[in-house]
Amino acid sequence: MPPDSAPPDPPRAEVRRAQILAAAGDCFRSKGFHGASIAQISRIAGMSPGHIYHYFENKEAIIAAIVAQDLEHVLAMTASLRVACNMKEAMVEHVADGVERSLEPRAAGLNLEILAEAARNPHVADIVRSADRVCRGSLALTLRDLRRAGGHDDDEATIAGMIEVLAAMFEGLASRSIRNPELDRSVVVRLFEGALRDLLSQNP
Amino acid sequence: MPPDSAPPDPPRAEVRRAQILAAAGDCFRSKGFHGASIAQISRIAGMSPGHIYHYFENKEAIIAAIVAQDLEHVLAMTASLRVACNMKEAMVEHVADGVERSLEPRAAGLNLEILAEAARNPHVADIVRSADRVCRGSLALTLRDLRRAGGHDDDEATIAGMIEVLAAMFEGLASRSIRNPELDRSVVVRLFEGALRDLLSQNP
Repeated sequence: MPPDSAPPDPPRAEVRRAQILAAAGDCFRSKGFHGASIAQISRIAGMSPGHIYHYFENKEAIIAAIVAQDLEHVLAMTASLRVACNMKEAMVEHVADGVERSLEPRAAGLNLEILAEAARNPHVADIVRSADRVCRGSLALTLRDLRRAGGHDDDEATIAGMIEVLAAMFEGLASRSIRNPELDRSVVVRLFEGALRDLLSQNP
Repeated sequence: MPPDSAPPDPPRAEVRRAQILAAAGDCFRSKGFHGASIAQISRIAGMSPGHIYHYFENKEAIIAAIVAQDLEHVLAMTASLRVACNMKEAMVEHVADGVERSLEPRAAGLNLEILAEAARNPHVADIVRSADRVCRGSLALTLRDLRRAGGHDDDEATIAGMIEVLAAMFEGLASRSIRNPELDRSVVVRLFEGALRDLLSQNP
């Protein structure tokens, strides 16, 4: 039983949780998942290890919360796309923000660390795969509507393939942010916008 | 001075080096760069730590050799593209192989581990950035020729941006291979081929 077992009041608890996630993200990125300890995370978060355990059972639970945050962002975006008048143009309008977020070096480093850990740790693999399944489900709804609005009637495999291409493009930017930190973001945004329009208009 | 200091005969030395790189790749992927030790690598490679040090000064030198191997593969591909009659179609023909290689889970896990390490270790960052610079230089020559053959006269920034989009797409497949191991490769290849044709024909 964690030392601080009284139920925290919700806004304060949210702030604490966010502090822990930010501190853990820093530690995972700079030390690696295995090199980061709850003791270090608690030091950076400015609270006791007991406090951390009050919110998270272990480091994997923290990873799950970080992955859930990213998932929420995608779900909010796909929900907003589904109510747009012109879904395709609404999606193109999100490209600049998506490129910027994906290239942010700290987020990129953390993402790559979580994926590298998922490649060797079945629990972390389960976390990222479950989130990805939900993310693909939401994107599939959006893309199917968008393609129907454009007069295309795709089979499930084509929609799933389009999601893979989109996901690869944006997820690949984490890698580009590390390999070529000086890349010209404005040109990348322009070409991503063009590539997205082409992909969404393809006759597969 | 390493114990085995006589110069090894070249083919045998090549085999030894390849054994070490394969063993080190396994260790880095399964234990992480920091968790992997020269002692473990030597056990998996079936040779003494002294032998390993005969070929590589330290773990970073092994990473440099792994990155150099990948770079060589890209340089060989771009060189073969530059002598093709129809460069664009030759490039499209390489898509299936590129997708397959990028999705291979062991290679993907190792790549992600190297990138995660590069995000926190300036020496490893230098290694991947130098290789990426060479890779981009070679791709730029190829793309400029290819686009000129198609009647486009692009500025340097556009060529550099196209390279970023291509690189993001293929590098992002490592992430997709971890997040969605069941993805339908044949659909991804078909859509990547379409996306590549569109990108190479864009009027930016």
